[in-house]
Amino acid sequence: MSEAKPVRIALLGCGTVGGGVLRLLRQNQAYLASRVGAPLEVRHVLVRDTTRPREEGCEQAWITDDAGRILEDDSLDVLVEVMGGEQRAGELIERGLQRGLGVVTANKFLLARRGPELLDLAVKQGTDLAFEASVGGGIPVIRTLREALTSDWVERLDGIVNGTCNYMLTRMREDGWGFEEALREAQRLGYAEAEPSLDVDGHDAAQKLVVLAMLAFGARVREASVPVQGIRAIDAADHRFAERFGYRIKHLAVGRDHGGHLELRVHPALVPTSDVLASVSGVLNAIRVEGRALGPCLLSGRGAGAMPTAVSVVADLVDVARARIAGVAGLATRGIQMAERALLPLQEVSSPFYLRFSVQDRPGVLAAIAGSLGDNGVSIEQMVQTGAGEGPVDIVMTTHRARWGGVEQALVHINQQDFTAKPGRFLPILQG
Amino acid sequence: MSEAKPVRIALLGCGTVGGGVLRLLRQNQAYLASRVGAPLEVRHVLVRDTTRPREEGCEQAWITDDAGRILEDDSLDVLVEVMGGEQRAGELIERGLQRGLGVVTANKFLLARRGPELLDLAVKQGTDLAFEASVGGGIPVIRTLREALTSDWVERLDGIVNGTCNYMLTRMREDGWGFEEALREAQRLGYAEAEPSLDVDGHDAAQKLVVLAMLAFGARVREASVPVQGIRAIDAADHRFAERFGYRIKHLAVGRDHGGHLELRVHPALVPTSDVLASVSGVLNAIRVEGRALGPCLLSGRGAGAMPTAVSVVADLVDVARARIAGVAGLATRGIQMAERALLPLQEVSSPFYLRFSVQDRPGVLAAIAGSLGDNGVSIEQMVQTGAGEGPVDIVMTTHRARWGGVEQALVHINQQDFTAKPGRFLPILQG
Repeated sequence: MSEAKPVRIALLGCGTVGGGVLRLLRQNQAYLASRVGAPLEVRHVLVRDTTRPREEGCEQAWITDDAGRILEDDSLDVLVEVMGGEQRAGELIERGLQRGLGVVTANKFLLARRGPELLDLAVKQGTDLAFEASVGGGIPVIRTLREALTSDWVERLDGIVNGTCNYMLTRMREDGWGFEEALREAQRLGYAEAEPSLDVDGHDAAQKLVVLAMLAFGARVREASVPVQGIRAIDAADHRFAERFGYRIKHLAVGRDHGGHLELRVHPALVPTSDVLASVSGVLNAIRVEGRALGPCLLSGRGAGAMPTAVSVVADLVDVARARIAGVAGLATRGIQMAERALLPLQEVSSPFYLRFSVQDRPGVLAAIAGSLGDNGVSIEQMVQTGAGEGPVDIVMTTHRARWGGVEQALVHINQQDFTAKPGRFLPILQG
Repeated sequence: MSEAKPVRIALLGCGTVGGGVLRLLRQNQAYLASRVGAPLEVRHVLVRDTTRPREEGCEQAWITDDAGRILEDDSLDVLVEVMGGEQRAGELIERGLQRGLGVVTANKFLLARRGPELLDLAVKQGTDLAFEASVGGGIPVIRTLREALTSDWVERLDGIVNGTCNYMLTRMREDGWGFEEALREAQRLGYAEAEPSLDVDGHDAAQKLVVLAMLAFGARVREASVPVQGIRAIDAADHRFAERFGYRIKHLAVGRDHGGHLELRVHPALVPTSDVLASVSGVLNAIRVEGRALGPCLLSGRGAGAMPTAVSVVADLVDVARARIAGVAGLATRGIQMAERALLPLQEVSSPFYLRFSVQDRPGVLAAIAGSLGDNGVSIEQMVQTGAGEGPVDIVMTTHRARWGGVEQALVHINQQDFTAKPGRFLPILQG
């Protein structure tokens, strides 16, 4: 099947994912050539430090720190961007697309900020921009949204898309740990950065949700407009209470298409233990998409890591290279439509909730709490009170479906009362 | 984006799936045209009874019971086969491929028997044969194996691919029902046929495994060479014992690539409750693929039903039509390689097992059982004995990893002993 002319590739970045890509290209050379219809030939590998040792089989002649030299190479076909960051990666991808090169990227950060604009540019230049590896590592969710669901209408999306949060929440639940203890262990194992904010404060998940929303809901959304909450406030007692009510706490990226408004949010939530998402443990990721015709479809796997991510990058590379060799670059993105979508304000979101109050144990407190909730349209479903006697007690409850804004208002009122020992908190409960 | 010349389609069969396909084509007409680059135009709908009322929007002029008339239409581009069965469907698909038409099929029965041959024919004729809907209904597993895993080596595959079995086993576990009770309920709900053998005896799952093995392991396998066991022998007590040991009983399609030999088998098995597959309940299907680089990747969703299956059919139709319009028919299957693979005999399969004996309660019985197992290289991990005093008792155990053939041999011996009240049985235990 192989034709004479190879597909020429520049790899932008050569960290762990870049090394994985080189390894897969070398190990599967003959098979990939037969799938593409031409050999895949690495021409350049852009790095910051040209002296560092690289993946076996990475030739010294490929290595350069000069992006200009790469972009001047007229024989190039595809840029594979695995360097990360916004500024420089964005500039190189933009210039590549303008030259009509195919582009494969794993850069969720860049896509969350400039995805629709870069996709428009690719369509305009009649070339491809592929980004499976940007969300969910090795999980083929982008391909599924773009191809498998093309005749369906995605109504909801619930994703565990941050492995760091999922690992930490899993250990907190299983081992009764607090946030700090779980974080230290995640850092020790290399699952969390020294500066963990991007993961544990939910920003990484928000970026992925914005990328997913492009294809799931055809939405051009700015990351800044997605309400985000991380997992710092969750403690071991929350896990115990959740379990008692029949739930597990998961950090979720949530999307709902109400037709008019689109609902996007990132936060920890209580997931029924009978829900498959509750069984997705450790660093695993999972994304469940619900199509109007399809019903629910769950994809789960390793959301990060060099080799799973590299598998997605190379799958995209085969697609882009094959289309290019066949003279039909841009075919995969043909007709994809994206529009500005109005977002439902978080206050208007309707959900059942989990509430937790720390209060003085004295008569009338529960009546006061129930009164404030009732005044704001929030009705209690189940309630437990823990401890007794000395010091504050925990009152924990689940509610029937209520307005997010109503719960917030009630908590503002309750937190001002003199019986409140620590500010009350709430988490939404995922409903099937 | 739409060009003048439409893509012309013949729909072969118009039952529930065919009706769903027509509905999706009508509801999403404009979007599908923009994705394909040309309108999709139904020209013929092949049915047995031309007088029966059809899906809204299905024009009378399309309806015919004359396959010859369809194949004579020189303007046709794609055959969409949703009629099922082997003989007639196979003949029409073969003639379509020979004419260079694109073909989309949902027919696992046909593919399990003639898949590699028909795929070869498509490649030879430079056209497409797409079959996402043949396995797992709306779950995009074929696409994932064909595209997303192209740079990886699939080492194992574990699938819950028969919704009837999964529904029945779920109800048996949850409600303490026996096989017959679960079957009656499945039949009442339309999840099982009046003649349920294809599902409950495992043949449907075996057909799907053969189709999956084509892409997962590049294997040309005959359905008859796959060892198959159904769920008739499972009773409510098995579910209770499994739960006690920390497992749930699932009906699985299993594949393992040992490099030299390939292991394929279909049977009920004990799955650890911590495994996500254990949480896949009711009529849901799930397929977990493990790639050497990717690690585990699970896809789950509705494995049957008109609309989920129709979503997969239309996704394939868009692929095939788009490639055809672009002049690159056959691109998606380029370079896919399949070879005859030697299958590991079931006796050589290595696994931990669940064993259940019904024996007279008298001294020396356990020692005799343990002796027979030991003689055949089977060592016990956990054991429970139930009941006591009058009548036979159940001895239930799990074993360490052992040869399938060794367990069979031991059971032949034990079942001949005079203390055996009912023949002993065994199920493999799934290991992570």
